Amino acid sequence: MDKQIIGIVAGILTSTSLIPQAVKSWKDKKASDVSYLMFFILLAGNGLWAWYGILLQDWPIIITNAFAFLMDLLMISLKWKFAKNEK
Amino acid sequence: MDKQIIGIVAGILTSTSLIPQAVKSWKDKKASDVSYLMFFILLAGNGLWAWYGILLQDWPIIITNAFAFLMDLLMISLKWKFAKNEK
Repeated sequence: MDKQIIGIVAGILTSTSLIPQAVKSWKDKKASDVSYLMFFILLAGNGLWAWYGILLQDWPIIITNAFAFLMDLLMISLKWKFAKNEK
Repeated sequence: MDKQIIGIVAGILTSTSLIPQAVKSWKDKKASDVSYLMFFILLAGNGLWAWYGILLQDWPIIITNAFAFLMDLLMISLKWKFAKNEK
């Protein structure tokens, strides 16, 4: 298989993986078992990846990580919003 | 800051982000709010990234994604193991 296709599919998978988690947390109205620290580390990591992409002027790196950065922010807000439902 | 340092720090952050999630799930003995689908997508994504790294013979890509792949497997097994504690 072509290298670039593998890289693109890999990037799409890792950057969209948070969608099912966000959907689940939204439906369940709770996210108590989800780690805040994981998302803060991901926020820093995806932010740095996006910055790295900007320095390299590599659009796939910028777009996938900017998207993941927004998903990290969404998950942090969902967890914060549903904190009242945690036991 | 040097590009390579940004990339390396970004890679370390995104690949180690699952450690606090695994520690939390292990301590709580439950992971019901965590999405199985997220970890299966990550497993496929990190696996493809590692393969991409092998094709490019790029060790940082291989090591960070092989590590993340193992963490995905660990989270899937923790969620499966603690399923009996889910309501």
